[in-house]
Amino acid sequence: MDNRPIAVFDSGLGGLTAVGALSRLYPDEDLIYFGDTGRVPYGTRSRKAILRFSSQAARFLMAFDPKALVIACGTASTAAMEAFDCGVPAVGVVEPSVRKAAAVTRNGRVGLLATPASVRTGAYAACMRSAAPHIALTERDGRLLVPLVEAGRVGPGDRVAALLIEEYCAPFRAAGVDTLILGCTHYPLLADLFAAALPGVTLVNAGVEAAEALRGLIIQADRERTGSLRFFVSDDAEGFSEQAKMFLQREITEMAEVVDLEENMV
Amino acid sequence: MDNRPIAVFDSGLGGLTAVGALSRLYPDEDLIYFGDTGRVPYGTRSRKAILRFSSQAARFLMAFDPKALVIACGTASTAAMEAFDCGVPAVGVVEPSVRKAAAVTRNGRVGLLATPASVRTGAYAACMRSAAPHIALTERDGRLLVPLVEAGRVGPGDRVAALLIEEYCAPFRAAGVDTLILGCTHYPLLADLFAAALPGVTLVNAGVEAAEALRGLIIQADRERTGSLRFFVSDDAEGFSEQAKMFLQREITEMAEVVDLEENMV
Repeated sequence: MDNRPIAVFDSGLGGLTAVGALSRLYPDEDLIYFGDTGRVPYGTRSRKAILRFSSQAARFLMAFDPKALVIACGTASTAAMEAFDCGVPAVGVVEPSVRKAAAVTRNGRVGLLATPASVRTGAYAACMRSAAPHIALTERDGRLLVPLVEAGRVGPGDRVAALLIEEYCAPFRAAGVDTLILGCTHYPLLADLFAAALPGVTLVNAGVEAAEALRGLIIQADRERTGSLRFFVSDDAEGFSEQAKMFLQREITEMAEVVDLEENMV
Repeated sequence: MDNRPIAVFDSGLGGLTAVGALSRLYPDEDLIYFGDTGRVPYGTRSRKAILRFSSQAARFLMAFDPKALVIACGTASTAAMEAFDCGVPAVGVVEPSVRKAAAVTRNGRVGLLATPASVRTGAYAACMRSAAPHIALTERDGRLLVPLVEAGRVGPGDRVAALLIEEYCAPFRAAGVDTLILGCTHYPLLADLFAAALPGVTLVNAGVEAAEALRGLIIQADRERTGSLRFFVSDDAEGFSEQAKMFLQREITEMAEVVDLEENMV
């Protein structure tokens, strides 16, 4: 057995949707989360900036001697996966969610909604071409959804959220997709609105798929124990528990600790 | 005469609305602009983060030996004005726009729309109490407007923009304001939508007022010359000229230079 923690990274709080899945799938494992809330969003920044921020985060997380890294951020997974090449297994969201979508589609038409940076890299499209070249992938960026979710506007009665999702989903409806990859870990919080905009379409949750993909890669922790959770953010830890509740869909008792990657690490 | 440049700071590109005003008001002056596009938006971050980012920006701009600083960012003006206390005149957006609003209101009811961080500091309210205590100020944060404007969604036909502005303006209508301070330098790009949501209400443009307020504080440059413009950003200079055109409402020929404040300055 291996009692070292699993480290989870996101540009902000979206990766907590993966933490929820990890806690359910691997209740014995210790989890260390770092969310770069001081520099969120990544999805509208250049590849160079995303790579630098991701490298700083990887160095921070490696100090906890993790047995694996989960890159629970669509943007970092597409634009800066090499930053997490630290000698331990690292799972991003791209390959697991592409494989899942390829497995569940019946009509061979899959949609991808992700951040502008993620779409720009072409990483999802390249992965789909390699994993399932017969599948037609329709890509679209959901640029305003990360600020929307971080503002807590995820309720089914939110007219702005509904209007934005309606707009972003129109090309997927036109393309006749039967499966949509929510390629940013913020998007599953809007699942009800996506389901309303695209009835009958299967939604693939990138964070959940990343958590699933970890299964074969780690040696499990001691079954006699209960996994712990530790949260680090780069800004505004006070608002954290409120927002974390929204992402994890349960109350949390753990406080987040604030770290300053720039001061310590550059 | 004093041919040293005027330095202009914003968290992103909103401050370019002030650059436009400065160019018109002071065509002989050299302008140096720094937009922290690698870390925009500031308005949803903690005061500590805003103060640190602003201090780095101030140090960067002071290297150009400016004769004055224009803090063309509502959030930095409310939360971190002390970061710009560098021994040269520094003008933020708060006092100039409060004074303007107090001068133009007829019914003594003024609205303020600014970022969450700006509203949280209470800086506009404190300034109004001190400058014009008889005026009733209604404050509201326009949290999603910065991402909206940076995404270029400022056209009168944008339904999401119209719906958001309708929502944000409802309390101003309820309070019967006749004057609204657009307390974030991104917001003037949405002026048409504000005018539609609040007919007859005078809009105060924070960036323009900051530019006006500089008049008495500087010794002018040589009238025989034509002022130059130099742009620095902390990320993604390639998209800069496209976006700058939107903010300045004219084509620009100057390229932006990318600087990394964290690597050089921490």
